[in-house]
Amino acid sequence: MRIVLDAMGSDRRPVPDVEGAVAAAREFSDTILLVGDPRLIEAELARHNTSGLSLEVIPAAEAIEMGDTPSVVARSKPDSSMHVGMRLVKEGKADAFVTCGNTGAVLAIALLRVLHRIPGIERPALTTLITVSGKRMILLDIGANADCKPEWLQQFALMGSIYAERALGRTRPRVALLSNGEEEGKGNGLIKETSKLLSGGPLNYIGNVEPKEMLDGHADVIVCDGFEGNICIKSMEALGDTVFKLLRGELKRDLRSKLGGLLGKPAFRRVYRQIDPFEIGGAPLLGVNGVVIIGHGRTNALGVKNAIRQAREAVAGQIIEAIRTGVAAYRPVDQLAAANSNTSV
Amino acid sequence: MRIVLDAMGSDRRPVPDVEGAVAAAREFSDTILLVGDPRLIEAELARHNTSGLSLEVIPAAEAIEMGDTPSVVARSKPDSSMHVGMRLVKEGKADAFVTCGNTGAVLAIALLRVLHRIPGIERPALTTLITVSGKRMILLDIGANADCKPEWLQQFALMGSIYAERALGRTRPRVALLSNGEEEGKGNGLIKETSKLLSGGPLNYIGNVEPKEMLDGHADVIVCDGFEGNICIKSMEALGDTVFKLLRGELKRDLRSKLGGLLGKPAFRRVYRQIDPFEIGGAPLLGVNGVVIIGHGRTNALGVKNAIRQAREAVAGQIIEAIRTGVAAYRPVDQLAAANSNTSV
Repeated sequence: MRIVLDAMGSDRRPVPDVEGAVAAAREFSDTILLVGDPRLIEAELARHNTSGLSLEVIPAAEAIEMGDTPSVVARSKPDSSMHVGMRLVKEGKADAFVTCGNTGAVLAIALLRVLHRIPGIERPALTTLITVSGKRMILLDIGANADCKPEWLQQFALMGSIYAERALGRTRPRVALLSNGEEEGKGNGLIKETSKLLSGGPLNYIGNVEPKEMLDGHADVIVCDGFEGNICIKSMEALGDTVFKLLRGELKRDLRSKLGGLLGKPAFRRVYRQIDPFEIGGAPLLGVNGVVIIGHGRTNALGVKNAIRQAREAVAGQIIEAIRTGVAAYRPVDQLAAANSNTSV
Repeated sequence: MRIVLDAMGSDRRPVPDVEGAVAAAREFSDTILLVGDPRLIEAELARHNTSGLSLEVIPAAEAIEMGDTPSVVARSKPDSSMHVGMRLVKEGKADAFVTCGNTGAVLAIALLRVLHRIPGIERPALTTLITVSGKRMILLDIGANADCKPEWLQQFALMGSIYAERALGRTRPRVALLSNGEEEGKGNGLIKETSKLLSGGPLNYIGNVEPKEMLDGHADVIVCDGFEGNICIKSMEALGDTVFKLLRGELKRDLRSKLGGLLGKPAFRRVYRQIDPFEIGGAPLLGVNGVVIIGHGRTNALGVKNAIRQAREAVAGQIIEAIRTGVAAYRPVDQLAAANSNTSV
């Protein structure tokens, strides 16, 4: 497999990016194509033992900055590492593209300049795989579309369902809407309208879940607009950070607490790992013509390696083909109703 | 002070409700009026030492259930403990109303049947006081209005600002919008439109905050629609619960961890207390003509007592009068611009 990594992606580029690429090339025996400033990449590669690994350096004249305006740089930096990397995927010279860079820019470049949408999908969705207490679930959209229409959420549900089949090995994944109450009729206007579109449709739609039920694994696919999903994820991250910060402080307050903290350290680490975003890796951008995985800007080498792992699993699961086929075969509720009334006549 | 408590409010009513009322009457030396089924209330009161405390039982023929549809029971149960309790406030026979019951029902009964809106406020907002690592802040709306207009959020900002002055003792409280990015221009359509209304206005508006900045205390008042606020709060609660559940599990895995858990217990308790919703008490419903505090349905006696404490602080701070005066004096941006252009002519 040939996976492109945007070496100019992360906040501390190209350090964690290159280190993660080296680790991935070693662990997965894949070819990793590092796109970016060759001087910087080569210098960083020289710090690692790369003998026997399949690593290629692909020059790109420009880099996208975190502060860049997505729609602007999508046009003004046509030779950025993101453009160059995605073009390799588009031209069939690579199987997937991974970056820890500016999410908005990835979205704009993928959607408007290089890969474009899968037919039938109006908006791609940023998707995350959550693992809590051994339960795995998929949440989308977590940030690609701040304002959504019910039809887009319906498409997210379909893509999420297909991704859950492939990435989690689920049959008939349970699909839910993220809402402020589990009862039918709870939610804002968008959630209520989407619920109508999903009820009685071909997906295994189970209604609303609240954040608690989501973490308890009540659904395999949780659907929401990108603003809500982003607030949900960031609220959880913020509280997780706060709890561990408070714990570190309180476990230094007196001798007894210090000793407890010392002895409990491996247990705390195990808990932290179960809510640590870098363990998961990245977020697939579902709905464009190619596997695109977006990692955290504040990532580390482990995060980069895991994002590459996600990319190769998506390629192996033929996720793009599955979405293409799934979208083409999908019959929304009104068409199903029409088909039923036709057969009953 | 005379505070009405809906004794039929909580999920385990009237047990924690009555116990909390007894504790509040003792600690604050206020008169607590317990509204509900007199038989149930008297039986519960008999289990406590109430000598010397000022507790009155006010009969109410009906109780609101958690599953009741708010708009329906607001009309169909005119003698519910919520109706009876709020009428006491409206008629000046009590200073504040506290309940741990169905939030939607409280809202509908307060807004449509008994207390009604403060002039100039289109929608009341459910407001919460968050305390993290010693920093205190106000978040609203956390659940009264799932779909909002920018003008409503502008009014929430004003009410939150006034509440922060009174409840937190802040001068010129920093007001922010809860968004998916701190940069200007981030947010969904609602946030962007509201930002225009607040920019250059009379409040101390500082722009967007993300959940992390919110918990770090970057703003005193954080404004959002009730759906977003509810998802934010519930996401944090869900992650907090998950972390402590995982901790309890991991701290039992082996002897070392068990010992660490035992020694660290007081430290864990201190952390838990800092993120425990029951410590705070309840959520004021700002914007109606009377102090209304709504506690958690899953509350305990401490939560009820703290909700009563919040009610008495709101009464002492003359929050209703302050909002009335503040709304009457508030000049939105366009009026300010008009006033400026007038004076410059």
